[in-house]
Amino acid sequence: MKHVLILGGDGYLGWPTAMYFSNLGYQVTVVDNYFRRNACTELDTGMLYSVPTLIERAKIWHEQTGREIKVVIADLAQPEAMRRLFDGGVKYQWAVNEEFTGIPETVVHYAEQPSAPYSLMDYQHADITLVNNLRVTNNLLWAIRDYARDTHLIKLGTMGEYGTPNIDIEEGWLEVEHKGRKDTFLYPRQAGSLYHTTKVMDTDLMWFGVRMWDLKVTDLMQGPVYGIETEESAIDDRLKTIFNYDEIFGTIVNRFVTQAVVGYPLTVYGGGGQTRGYLNIRDTLQCVHVSEQNPAQKGELRIFNQIMETFSVNELAELTQKVGNRRGHQVEIKSIPNPRKEAEEHYYNPTYQGLQDIGVKPHYLTEEVMDRLFEVVEQYRENIRKDVIFKGIKW
Amino acid sequence: MKHVLILGGDGYLGWPTAMYFSNLGYQVTVVDNYFRRNACTELDTGMLYSVPTLIERAKIWHEQTGREIKVVIADLAQPEAMRRLFDGGVKYQWAVNEEFTGIPETVVHYAEQPSAPYSLMDYQHADITLVNNLRVTNNLLWAIRDYARDTHLIKLGTMGEYGTPNIDIEEGWLEVEHKGRKDTFLYPRQAGSLYHTTKVMDTDLMWFGVRMWDLKVTDLMQGPVYGIETEESAIDDRLKTIFNYDEIFGTIVNRFVTQAVVGYPLTVYGGGGQTRGYLNIRDTLQCVHVSEQNPAQKGELRIFNQIMETFSVNELAELTQKVGNRRGHQVEIKSIPNPRKEAEEHYYNPTYQGLQDIGVKPHYLTEEVMDRLFEVVEQYRENIRKDVIFKGIKW
Repeated sequence: MKHVLILGGDGYLGWPTAMYFSNLGYQVTVVDNYFRRNACTELDTGMLYSVPTLIERAKIWHEQTGREIKVVIADLAQPEAMRRLFDGGVKYQWAVNEEFTGIPETVVHYAEQPSAPYSLMDYQHADITLVNNLRVTNNLLWAIRDYARDTHLIKLGTMGEYGTPNIDIEEGWLEVEHKGRKDTFLYPRQAGSLYHTTKVMDTDLMWFGVRMWDLKVTDLMQGPVYGIETEESAIDDRLKTIFNYDEIFGTIVNRFVTQAVVGYPLTVYGGGGQTRGYLNIRDTLQCVHVSEQNPAQKGELRIFNQIMETFSVNELAELTQKVGNRRGHQVEIKSIPNPRKEAEEHYYNPTYQGLQDIGVKPHYLTEEVMDRLFEVVEQYRENIRKDVIFKGIKW
Repeated sequence: MKHVLILGGDGYLGWPTAMYFSNLGYQVTVVDNYFRRNACTELDTGMLYSVPTLIERAKIWHEQTGREIKVVIADLAQPEAMRRLFDGGVKYQWAVNEEFTGIPETVVHYAEQPSAPYSLMDYQHADITLVNNLRVTNNLLWAIRDYARDTHLIKLGTMGEYGTPNIDIEEGWLEVEHKGRKDTFLYPRQAGSLYHTTKVMDTDLMWFGVRMWDLKVTDLMQGPVYGIETEESAIDDRLKTIFNYDEIFGTIVNRFVTQAVVGYPLTVYGGGGQTRGYLNIRDTLQCVHVSEQNPAQKGELRIFNQIMETFSVNELAELTQKVGNRRGHQVEIKSIPNPRKEAEEHYYNPTYQGLQDIGVKPHYLTEEVMDRLFEVVEQYRENIRKDVIFKGIKW
């Protein structure tokens, strides 16, 4: 039974990923320090509904399916905590079988502060983001170097690493011809937030590890994810993932649908021409799974652009308005002064064929898909706090 | 009187830079946490001679010249320590006039763990390098953002950020044409050590700060520096800079001359075809000074390649042998298995015209210059410990 270790297993993507692999029969271990929950409390961001602790969720999952997801609560920015996951010294906070599972064949690394606005609130939140994200990645690379050189690392990067260049965005790499000579480099990266810049630096670190120590790494340049439900969360309502709808941790589609449900005008930043690639949370799980099934080779940093389609902010707002109005909401769209420093009109032509080439079947953001998202959010309408939707964190 | 703040003012380059600006009449403040000295003690690296504390040096400088270099002993990885340098809350550990000097017009940032082998000793030294280097740079950028947007930041980067690409190395930037469209990017970076990778990440961070907050930044891509003496150190022997000759903190020319003096065969790693750009410590001071006199503009990340000439390792070994033998040493050259993972034969064609265009007059590594370096090192021959020269830290 193959072992998947999921770092950041309590997060928006981490917990659904854990259930997904567990359901397929993998041995799964999740690790988290509750950073996201604690930050939501500190910043009073609100949540669509409260979620059980990671240990409670693992117990519910076990009761409902008979399957075990082992739980470790630890701060992986501490090198020793990371190493204990590989050297057998780990203590599980919850497990059916408390014996060490052994070296994982695959590590899925989500254990990062994931919000651009959070990273730019002030110097302290910038420092937390930088230190957490870089240390966790570096500690992980050293643990794999020292204990697990055959382990495949699947790391969540972001399409935001590329920024919005004036040339086509390739999948991770670019061949450059210069003064009659050629070389291939990591595609040039210039991110639009400090959070996104830490992901650029993660890629720098992993590329170093791959070149020096022949590690196997897949770096997934993911776009903003939307959605709540996955096949596994349907088993029990308490297994649904954390869902934020505020400016800091809420992703745009999730925010817009929530705003529409409570009659809060959709917050379009500036002109709304900002174009990005998006994907359904179900496709995140699929992408990680096909990456796991087709691992990178030793000494390979394999990069995929993990998006299924592109939209401008205005297109997303219009889609939300259309579906929302049909469901009886009065959806307004309101352009507000852009709190971010970013181009509101720009060239954007990313390639994203690699994951589909190895088997991913995209879900698209159709009116039906958005309709179902509305249906779920409406169930929790009473919980939505208008006061936390937008605070105006400036870049 | 213009104020220059020097971070890492106790180091190999920091202290000579402080005296250089002080001698020219600038108000100078130096900050250090004695990282380098403490690491030399911990790792038992040896030093050619012991140097007084930063406070003692500042006092000697004051006695000899009447000039004041204010001293702060602080760990700039702590955000609050950095901010106190800008908000008036700083306490000087030594100063003639204890009043706050005010916001500096220029910050020279050397406050980094500077050794590639140190960064790869083990996971703990990797973690220390990553955390120190990235936090100091990020804390500095935020302090400038919040208190000093007109301050010019001069940052020591490294030519090692570029690695050894198969195309010509430009000064920081590269215009790329791809599928009929064009854009200009940071020159692609892929470094050969974790230390060098932290410098790549510093550049990522500074480029973010420049784009978001219109900061003024000069990033100096420096090659390995050699030499001991500067004009200012000639005033008093106790003002000479820290000089290491071991594998961890010693730079190659300094190491080779020291090895030659004690009859230790010159340690050529592998084939010795590794080619890099080099400069005299006097030219580091000159480069920083001309950069200060010709600052970057608001919203400009200006990058210079700070080298004066290129040599292969074999060429440096042969030059050392020639000069050493003439001085009566029996200099042997010995190729040892390369502890590093690096190309031993490679294309290398860097541009380095920018600093000379704004006024730098290069010193070259002539036989006369090396002869004088031998002369100084020979004075301390009794202090040289053969046992610490090479320990074989592997990449």
